[in-house]
Amino acid sequence: MSNFKRNFHLLFERPHQPVFIAKGPKKTAFKVCEEYLKVNPRYKCLGVSHCNSFDKNAEELVEVKRTPIPSFDEILELKRDENFSLFIPKHRRLAGKLIDIFWNMPDLDHLLFTAMCARDCLNPYLFHYALTVAMLHRPDTKDMAVPTFVEFFPDKFVDAKALAELKDQAILISENSRKPIEVTEEVSDKEVEHRLMYFREDMGVNLHHWHWHLVYPHGTSDLEDKTEAQVEATKKIVDKDRRGELFYYMHQQVIARYNYERLCNDLKKTKKLDWTKEIEEAYFPKLGTLKTGMSYAARVANQKFQDLDREEDKRYVDELKKWSDQIYAAIHHGSVIDERGCLISLTESKGIDILGNIIESSALSHNRTLYGDLHNTGHDFIGNIHDPDNRHLKSLGVMGDSAMAMRDPVFYRWHTYIDDMFQEYKATLPHYSESQLNYPGITVSAIEVQSHRSPNNTFSTFWQKTDLDLSKGLDFDTKGPIYWRFKHLQHQPFTYKITVNNHSNSNKKGTCRIFLAPKYDETGKPWSFRDQKIMFIELDKFTIDLERGQKIYSREDHESTVTISFEKTFRKFQEEESSAEFNFCGCGWPHHMLIPKGTPEGFASQLFVMISNYEDDKVAEELGETCNDAGSYCGIKNKMYPDRRAMGYPFDRLPRNGVDTLQEFLTPNMRVQDVTIKFSDRIDIHGPVN
Amino acid sequence: MSNFKRNFHLLFERPHQPVFIAKGPKKTAFKVCEEYLKVNPRYKCLGVSHCNSFDKNAEELVEVKRTPIPSFDEILELKRDENFSLFIPKHRRLAGKLIDIFWNMPDLDHLLFTAMCARDCLNPYLFHYALTVAMLHRPDTKDMAVPTFVEFFPDKFVDAKALAELKDQAILISENSRKPIEVTEEVSDKEVEHRLMYFREDMGVNLHHWHWHLVYPHGTSDLEDKTEAQVEATKKIVDKDRRGELFYYMHQQVIARYNYERLCNDLKKTKKLDWTKEIEEAYFPKLGTLKTGMSYAARVANQKFQDLDREEDKRYVDELKKWSDQIYAAIHHGSVIDERGCLISLTESKGIDILGNIIESSALSHNRTLYGDLHNTGHDFIGNIHDPDNRHLKSLGVMGDSAMAMRDPVFYRWHTYIDDMFQEYKATLPHYSESQLNYPGITVSAIEVQSHRSPNNTFSTFWQKTDLDLSKGLDFDTKGPIYWRFKHLQHQPFTYKITVNNHSNSNKKGTCRIFLAPKYDETGKPWSFRDQKIMFIELDKFTIDLERGQKIYSREDHESTVTISFEKTFRKFQEEESSAEFNFCGCGWPHHMLIPKGTPEGFASQLFVMISNYEDDKVAEELGETCNDAGSYCGIKNKMYPDRRAMGYPFDRLPRNGVDTLQEFLTPNMRVQDVTIKFSDRIDIHGPVN
Repeated sequence: MSNFKRNFHLLFERPHQPVFIAKGPKKTAFKVCEEYLKVNPRYKCLGVSHCNSFDKNAEELVEVKRTPIPSFDEILELKRDENFSLFIPKHRRLAGKLIDIFWNMPDLDHLLFTAMCARDCLNPYLFHYALTVAMLHRPDTKDMAVPTFVEFFPDKFVDAKALAELKDQAILISENSRKPIEVTEEVSDKEVEHRLMYFREDMGVNLHHWHWHLVYPHGTSDLEDKTEAQVEATKKIVDKDRRGELFYYMHQQVIARYNYERLCNDLKKTKKLDWTKEIEEAYFPKLGTLKTGMSYAARVANQKFQDLDREEDKRYVDELKKWSDQIYAAIHHGSVIDERGCLISLTESKGIDILGNIIESSALSHNRTLYGDLHNTGHDFIGNIHDPDNRHLKSLGVMGDSAMAMRDPVFYRWHTYIDDMFQEYKATLPHYSESQLNYPGITVSAIEVQSHRSPNNTFSTFWQKTDLDLSKGLDFDTKGPIYWRFKHLQHQPFTYKITVNNHSNSNKKGTCRIFLAPKYDETGKPWSFRDQKIMFIELDKFTIDLERGQKIYSREDHESTVTISFEKTFRKFQEEESSAEFNFCGCGWPHHMLIPKGTPEGFASQLFVMISNYEDDKVAEELGETCNDAGSYCGIKNKMYPDRRAMGYPFDRLPRNGVDTLQEFLTPNMRVQDVTIKFSDRIDIHGPVN
Repeated sequence: MSNFKRNFHLLFERPHQPVFIAKGPKKTAFKVCEEYLKVNPRYKCLGVSHCNSFDKNAEELVEVKRTPIPSFDEILELKRDENFSLFIPKHRRLAGKLIDIFWNMPDLDHLLFTAMCARDCLNPYLFHYALTVAMLHRPDTKDMAVPTFVEFFPDKFVDAKALAELKDQAILISENSRKPIEVTEEVSDKEVEHRLMYFREDMGVNLHHWHWHLVYPHGTSDLEDKTEAQVEATKKIVDKDRRGELFYYMHQQVIARYNYERLCNDLKKTKKLDWTKEIEEAYFPKLGTLKTGMSYAARVANQKFQDLDREEDKRYVDELKKWSDQIYAAIHHGSVIDERGCLISLTESKGIDILGNIIESSALSHNRTLYGDLHNTGHDFIGNIHDPDNRHLKSLGVMGDSAMAMRDPVFYRWHTYIDDMFQEYKATLPHYSESQLNYPGITVSAIEVQSHRSPNNTFSTFWQKTDLDLSKGLDFDTKGPIYWRFKHLQHQPFTYKITVNNHSNSNKKGTCRIFLAPKYDETGKPWSFRDQKIMFIELDKFTIDLERGQKIYSREDHESTVTISFEKTFRKFQEEESSAEFNFCGCGWPHHMLIPKGTPEGFASQLFVMISNYEDDKVAEELGETCNDAGSYCGIKNKMYPDRRAMGYPFDRLPRNGVDTLQEFLTPNMRVQDVTIKFSDRIDIHGPVN
């Protein structure tokens, strides 16, 4: 690894300790200088020479080439001990400014020195985000080390109590005698929402969400103040193929998965949030900030949206209504109005993408004046609901932070509200005709799920405990790894066996789409197709070469293009990897959550397989070589989305006339198999993942 | 200092680190043994020999004589990382059990070894409380070291952000380069209650309250399960002279002082809490627990009392109504009914004491079945209002902890509700006749307040910043002191000059009582006596020898029998002191808060001086030698309350007929002087207090 790579990597480590404290396996400290002390007045009293001999444990001193550094003035307004939220316009603007600074550095020397000086004076979350985004997109840093988030900010993912135990252990127990730390689960039978804690608080699920928003940043909110080059740069970061549609689809699938888990846990589907009413669900985070010893704000039961009046973050509840009215009007008119007043048609192919960018909203929104900032604002309202005018000076709840938002039951209620807009739009689109669904000559004649030691057509789920080394995120000197043992859902590996009959005259190519949904609705009755279609969760999607005649095709669960492997979700950054890849690869539904929990008796489900005509699916580009394993929810880095069809096809639209049930929906190239998800309440010890 | 003394002292230090980690100036570790490891399974894996060589910094190893240790079984139910609240009956019971264990140890060897073994397995707050109470009352530990609370649990008194900075400094800055740490005040102009933050969050005020409840423990709630000897032991701890009356008076004075400060800050008096309605005031603590990185629960605006259903802590809102109805009935009937059904008269001299014990309630309550546990239950309801049935497993807000309760605006609203009951009772008592007020032959003919560089009859107040060493409470190895610089109110020293005319034929002895009240009510009009009488705050009370003829008597503010000195409030425990004295001496209103803040323009007030006949005031006992300096609010250790009169005399009752104003109330031995409290918005740096 080049020195640049390594030095950038070290800058991310132990974010709350200054650069002149040793970091990394070689105990490397950075040499500081006057420029550094000038922007870091808190260390000024130490003086250059004292800083540079400060850490007696340092075994190596790195001298970075000094370059002029820009002013961080406005960016300093977000203090080091404050929370950073991409849902707050001001924070987004500050992040945009810092991304611009890093983006505009002429070379690596300038970038490294500027980052080194910025690191200890700026808010550490803001710094991490901006430098990561810049490095992901700069041509000269694409192969640089940008390690993942949980390693350096474990307090956003790991319960405060567990971290306290880990700290104790680090001090008390020598490396050889250490055991993985577990803390008792804090689950109450009184609170039905706790039944879903294993899903909402899953570290992999939350890491996925954080990674998604890192690879699909909103962009900054003030493009109008920028030079053309800056606008271009921002667009490059934000304007990825079908990102608006992906915003819709990824979140739609999260809701579908969440509702699936709810049904498995004898709960009804999550209710769309009526934000004019009180929010019944409370949420008390168990996370605390390592640095300040304060926990994130809780939301007690029955809180209501109120106008926000928090310094430069002023939002009005009335606006939500106005924006949503405008968005619904656009949906029903079939077109949006851009900032110049021109109509832009919501076409069958592009409409959902346009809406996604508007509703989220990202910098690609065609008209933020008219359609506002709906989804982000909802996060902001809820994240500050405990202290809407900041009179108590209490900062965010988890809904304000994409690394933690999925922990809160209201996340799903808010996103159901958002998803309902998309569904309303989808209902305006032409229904798929039989010819748009069928693949003449191709019949799926059987499906079977095979799994070791399970009956056929049974998914087996269970608990697993995994050990994760968090030593790099604990802000004090520790020798050796310190393992946290956490419990999560897991499933037995399985294989799909799909029997396809190609009764055409030639070999064909198809796209095999695999979905899963509960067989019965909340009341125990069979679904209407209309309701079941949004319950389908995507399990896999892959290209398949169909030889003539009948053949059985096999596909392993770990090949899924929805998920990334367990190791990829949790593993440490490997020094030989490129950062850009690493971060992109970090996006993906965690494989251990591929299959919903099911029930001990076996949860009745329907496995749906469809083989569509590859000619209608294929995109112009070849798939990239790397990180193409979770394209369905994350796209493919620097490539087009790997499926030309609407995301969620064939379940993204209302069915053709006369179709009321899933059976009626089927064309010969589709098939449904009844399957069962059987949960076993045992715990498997997985051991260290890294 | 004997070894026992020192060893007990060390057991209190760094409560979150086990005994085998070095403590104290000589870096002393305790030698552990099998018995210790048996009750501390978390260290079992280390083994005896590893524990005893664990801390490489230890320079001295203490071996404590091994004795049989009792079972801590039930006491272990309160986990180490939970909060401990004397307002929760279960916690009170567990504390009672542990006090019993310590109380019943036959000698110091048993006590020390048992405490050493208990220390690292029991909840550290519970352990501290129980051992302190036991040592305060055991004859053989009265001269033992029981240091104060803030030193070892700074997270209950110091903002989490400040502690985080202190930790940083401890790691980063060497002893010689350290500067006192200050954090920016978190005060918002939007929240009017923040105007009183200097009072509510004053460390001295909160330490006073904590000390008061330590020297006047509630007692355990299950006397009925105890042997007679145990009941006697408990009574000895609880049954102090006029403790019920003192509960009333100390809290009444706190309310009067708080309302005084509110008027100085252009706020109306605090409103009595109507607990059937929503509580408008929110409170967000800025404290976090050092150990777990979680903050105490916040209370958002408009929360309402709800039934508590938290494991063994079940309380019903209905009961409050029932209890308060019974208490009001008793007040109006002039008698209470004891557990056996007998009437006990609320006599003029004893009634208030009986009521105090009933309302608080302490173990001395005559009938907990009928009158319940009113005041404690209110604290409990409010402390758990965010999660009344514990479904979210979120523990206490500050109202559940006597070390922090005074931070919350609702404390004063709840105690106004409580105080109203006492005032209702006081209104039933015979009014003081002129002869009960006058002191024939004695006239107070003039009063003057003199203060350096201030006009006469002016109290001068200002801000002061003081540095406090908190190194002992930070749970990691630090060399040298680490100072926190905190801001608090202070006043210029002053002298009362009281001109008394003894026109009788002989020298006399009198009790001089000095009170202060705002001159005008909330609307700016002169008070009616009825309203002003409960606004008077006691400033001093002392015995005075009155020579014949006219003479000017001087009294310095620092001699006040209401306050303890600044140094006593904050100083470290000195090794040569006795613990019992130290703790008793720790109780007392902090001297820097003797005079309310006033206003920059000068806040119009009335200074009241009365000289009563010592023959009617004196008690049978001589005053103790030590800790007699704050007797008014705290009593005197092991002595009778030093004034036979009703506490608050002469303002504790309705005035005689025809008296509507303070002037009309006066007899010749009383006098009122208009005075002004002038606040200067400057900051004086006081430097280290210890």
